[in-house]
Parts: sequence; structure tokens; C-alpha cells
Amino acid sequence: MSIATADPFAWIDAAAEQRRSAGLVRTLRPRPAVGDVLDLASNDYLGLTHDPRVTRAAADAALRWGGGATGSRLVTGTTELHAELEQELADFCGVEAALVFSSGYTANLAALTALTGPGALIVSDALNHASLIDGCRLSRARVARAAHRDPDAFRAELATRSEERAIAVSDSVFSVDGDAAPLAALAAACRDHGAALVVDDAHGLGVLGPGGAGATAAAGLAGAPDVVTTVTLSKSLASQGGAVLGPRRVIEHLVQAARTFIFDTGLAPAAAGAALGALRALRAEPSRAERAREVAHALSTGLLERGLAASVPDAAVVGVRAPSPEAALAWATELRARGLGVGCFRPPSVPDRFSRLRLTARADLTDEQIAWAVDLIAETARR
Amino acid sequence: MSIATADPFAWIDAAAEQRRSAGLVRTLRPRPAVGDVLDLASNDYLGLTHDPRVTRAAADAALRWGGGATGSRLVTGTTELHAELEQELADFCGVEAALVFSSGYTANLAALTALTGPGALIVSDALNHASLIDGCRLSRARVARAAHRDPDAFRAELATRSEERAIAVSDSVFSVDGDAAPLAALAAACRDHGAALVVDDAHGLGVLGPGGAGATAAAGLAGAPDVVTTVTLSKSLASQGGAVLGPRRVIEHLVQAARTFIFDTGLAPAAAGAALGALRALRAEPSRAERAREVAHALSTGLLERGLAASVPDAAVVGVRAPSPEAALAWATELRARGLGVGCFRPPSVPDRFSRLRLTARADLTDEQIAWAVDLIAETARR
Repeated sequence: MSIATADPFAWIDAAAEQRRSAGLVRTLRPRPAVGDVLDLASNDYLGLTHDPRVTRAAADAALRWGGGATGSRLVTGTTELHAELEQELADFCGVEAALVFSSGYTANLAALTALTGPGALIVSDALNHASLIDGCRLSRARVARAAHRDPDAFRAELATRSEERAIAVSDSVFSVDGDAAPLAALAAACRDHGAALVVDDAHGLGVLGPGGAGATAAAGLAGAPDVVTTVTLSKSLASQGGAVLGPRRVIEHLVQAARTFIFDTGLAPAAAGAALGALRALRAEPSRAERAREVAHALSTGLLERGLAASVPDAAVVGVRAPSPEAALAWATELRARGLGVGCFRPPSVPDRFSRLRLTARADLTDEQIAWAVDLIAETARR
Repeated sequence: MSIATADPFAWIDAAAEQRRSAGLVRTLRPRPAVGDVLDLASNDYLGLTHDPRVTRAAADAALRWGGGATGSRLVTGTTELHAELEQELADFCGVEAALVFSSGYTANLAALTALTGPGALIVSDALNHASLIDGCRLSRARVARAAHRDPDAFRAELATRSEERAIAVSDSVFSVDGDAAPLAALAAACRDHGAALVVDDAHGLGVLGPGGAGATAAAGLAGAPDVVTTVTLSKSLASQGGAVLGPRRVIEHLVQAARTFIFDTGLAPAAAGAALGALRALRAEPSRAERAREVAHALSTGLLERGLAASVPDAAVVGVRAPSPEAALAWATELRARGLGVGCFRPPSVPDRFSRLRLTARADLTDEQIAWAVDLIAETARR
């Protein structure tokens, strides 16, 4: 049998070759702890990753609670530290209850799979994050895509419903260009159709809303009985992990039914500690949220004034279109060599065919740093 | 429209009521940092969770590298610490390369989705872990279930293949009863059919194989060109996270194609540090692996001698069947009240209809602690 002697991974070499000729190879670039590059690439929106209130809390948690959570949250993996973090997150975001996961990815899989199922409809924004798309796929619900940020499109899809249950799901702030979803209008569409709304606030928490309480709070939806929010602990909160926030009965249901909660080890104590440290730092300095938005606006305005195709940010992310994947990579490489770190997003990580730089604002950037970065990017793109 | 005024989460209350009447409600029980309960419930097989070599490494990593990885591994989330951990993991397990994820769950989703797809066949053990089942669902491959631990059943399903690519996937050690898969026979079946083998060694790493190098090493498959292993950092390695281990081209392919790698924040530095600390502790004291197996055997033998339906462990997990979910819960509650922590697994977390206690061995348990635990369990079950 010829199949018997076949190399089962031969196809990988062919896929790699295709990627090389398309200029789409991605490379891991291990970085040092303290670099000499100004960082506009990370999602450290509040600039808290190296804040001693965060790192000391992480260290103390590891020393006190151990290196790992030791088991599923339902067995040995729930410590008093997890409960404390969940309570403070819920309070901060103005919801009844919160449940913490090992990543934002698994939090999204949990919310979508446990709240829907084969007898449900999910209406999903066409540009939702990969973790939401995977959650839709895993849910075995009927999934309808709605046009990006279009409440009428959501309404039209919700109106097709023959299923008993329905939810609509949207990023609050879209990762690549930083544009915001019309949450209040989406919630109204859901209510008119008896559906619940699930909001992924990964890029809104810490940046939008009063004191950084997030996009759901900004839209007046915090604490609503028919709204569920997912967040990440790995962006504004300078840690790792994710959480689902919402009505207590929804959170309690996830404890009972969400596979990525039940069958995953609990979040490491150090990560819970770091997130708590960051949350408390933000509560002590709520102006960090506003400053992150200011910095993003300054970046976008400066680049637009210099003729670049920058997005106008609704939160802390600015996308800058490049003419080709090769150009985007060349820009990013040149910027890095000159001391500026930026994200470089190419297909298939972009929602359209356009490669771009992705710049993230950080609350701790100075006006001088912003001006320098804008000049450098404009100069690099001109060449 | 009646639907307009409907409560979109009313169904949750009905589901909760059903669960209550079936005796299947799960409760989160936040635990203190240092309890007064002897722990046979965690997956801390090597007893390293509170080892200063682990907790100090976690704390140092947080202080030096920050609270979080700050972005996707492809953007800012790969530190030199991640690269170091990946190199040491690969060396320890005898493979070309390793890639670290934020959880074992996302590592399994990555391996299954990136190595298969709509044009592929996955043959999956009927009792595989939830994360493997979800990986199969997400992959959009054709999925065939093979009877538990039955190489002939795998052969029969592989023989039905009309797809271009095929993999077989199995836990190395099954989570609930601690029974092992016949990996060498599965690999032979795969080779006869031109398929690759994916092994989830979550419960084998640190326990099985030379010095705890895992079930793949124990089966003589470490470094094989057609075998991919997934592991967790959250059990023997006393941290959080997961990894995929295998041929370099496979690992490189995951970097390019695995959605849970590309679209997830990198593992937190503290978790990478803790895992490295635990790996080094195990290399310094390789007898911990053997001791974990000895402890499991002593638990199983003691319980069988007292007439309990204990499984015979192939690694560090012992299952003890209970006559009902209520009995399992009553046993576990009583044991906890008397100072012994055990896992209590009830439907739907068990592979069959049998609820059971789940006991995990730890390398640092003394013979006296084992004898006391066996007596207490036997006495509790008799009543």
C-alpha cells in the first residue's frame, strides 16, 4: 500500500513553501525583559505590566498560593484569591458576578458554547475575534453572520429565528483597527427579538467607560439582565486569563456547563494576583483610562495629518494600512531597527486583504514619545 | 410579539432546577492557601506546587518580565524566557521542538485544528478528554470514534479513510480512572495506514517514562517523525499552560496556523518561570516520577484489599466507583470534614454513568499518610 510508507506530514512542507512565496511567514522573535524599543505593539494599554503594584502582587501570590492552581476550578483550583478577584471584577464592572478563566480565548468559548447549543441561533459580527468565531463553531448553534457594526443587519438575522434561544455577539472594540461596536443599538435589537447580547470587551476594559469600567458600562448596559460581557486579564489588567461577567444565574450556569471551565486547570495564582494588582491600580488612578484614549487619538491624528491611512480610534488601537504585506513587514522591521516596536498584521490575521501596522496606545506614553513615533512612522512609510 | 418581552435566560432556571433534582449541582469552594486537609484531589503529582524552586522562579519571573506577556506570541508575547522553557521542554522529552500555550486546553485545540481540517480524518479514542473532543469538533475534519484503548478499533477506522490526511489521537493516561493507552500499538496502527499519532500526555509527563519524560518516551516514541505530543504545565510542572511537542516542521506549522496560538496572549512570565523551575527540580530529582507511581499503587492496592472498586493505576490517578452520584458526594464531603481532600466526579464529567472518587498520588506523600487515607476512605464508604 503506498499510503503505508507515506510521510504523514509531507503536506506541511508544501504549505510552508506556499507561505514563503506569498511573503506570509511569521517568525517568533524572543525579546529581552527590558528592551531598547519604544513599545507600540503590546496590549499593555494602561502601562501596568511592569508596575510594582502588579509584579509584586504576582510574586506574592506565587509565593503564598503556589506555582499553579493544582486542578480544575471545580476540584482544587478555586482559591480564596480567585474568589476575591471575581468579586472585585464584578464590582468594578457593575455586574452581579464574574467567573475567571485561564485565558480570554477559553472564556469566549465558554460563554458561547454554554449559552447556546444545537437549539439556538447566534448572530455574530462579521469581523469578530477568532475566539468568538471558534466559540460559534463549537456551539453547534446555527450561526448567522451580520455585517460589521450594523444593528440593522443584526435585526434582520435575529428576525429569521425559528430557534428557541438566540444571542447576538460582538467585540466591543475590534482588535485590528480599534473601531467600536454600537452596543446600545445592538442591545436594543436583541431586546426587540428576545435575544441576549454577548459582548467581548477585551479591548474596552480599562480603556472605555467611567474609570475604565469598559464598553458595556459606557453603553449603559452594565448590570443588564440580558447582557453578558467577556473580558481578558491580559491587556489592561497586565496579566493572563479571561473572565465572563454578567447576571449571577448566567455565571452559575457556566460553572455547571462550560467545558473550558470544568475541564481546564484554574488560572495560576500569580496571574490572579497580577490582575487584582492592576485592577486596584486602575481604581486608584482612574485617569489612566482616559490617557490611553488620548494617546491613541494623538497617534491617529498625527499620522492622518502626515497622509497615512490611519484609523480613527474608538479606544486605544490604531490601524495603519500598508500597500502590501511586504511593505507592512518592511515598515515594521525598519521601525524596530530604529527603536519603535509596532504590530504588523498580514493575512490571514486581518479582516480584509489589507496588511497594516497596528499601534496600541499606552497610558504611560509621553507627548514627546508620541511625537517621535509619529514622525518616525511617517518618515519610514514615505521611503 | 410575545418573544419581545421574553427573558432570554429563563431557560437557565429550568436547567438549574433539573440539575438540583438530579443531585448534580457543582459548587465552587474557595480554599485557603494552606489548608488542614490532606490533598488527594489536585493534579500536583510531583508535589512541587509549593516547592520554593517553583514559587521563587514564578515570583522572580513576574518581577523581571512583568505581570503578563503583553500580546500574542507573534507580536510582543514571546520572551527569552518562553524560548528557554520551550528548549528545555523539548530536550527533556526528547523531541525536536516545543511550543508553549496559555493552557493545555488551547494546546490541544491547536494541535488538532492545525494538523487536520476539512480534508482530513481524525480517529479519536471514545474516552478522550473534553479538550480533544472540542479540538475534533473545531477541526471540521471527519471524526471517527474508536473503542477505548483498542488498537484494532483504531486500525479499522483508519482503514475507512478516503481523506488525504489522517491522524489518530488519544490521551496517554485517561483522566478519570488513570488507565493508559497502548501507545506503541497505536503508533504501529498509524504507520500501517500513513497516519500521524497525536498523544495528550497531560497525566503522563513527570510520572511515566525515564525520569518522568512522559508516556511517549516510555513507549519509545520520543522524537518519532510522525508523533506529536501535547502536555500541560499545570499538573506535574506545578504551573499553568500547555505545550505541543514534536518534529520541528510541525511546531513551525503551528506557529503559522494554530488559531489558539496566534490569537491568544502568550503565557504569563510567572507561569513560564514556574514550569521551568519544576522541570529543573524534576531533572535534579528524577525519582519523584517513580515515587508518584508507587504512591498510586499503594492507594489502589489498599482500597482493593478493603473491597472498594478502585482502578489499578497505570500512572498517578486512581478512580474509586461509588454506587450513586449522591453517595460519591456524601463520601467526598465526609472525607473532607475528616481531613482528606478527594475529587468527586459525577455525570457529565465521567465517561460512563458511574460517579466516583478520584484520588491522585503525590510524590511527597508518606507511607503513613497513604495508610491513613486508605483506612479513612474504606471506613467512610462502609457507612
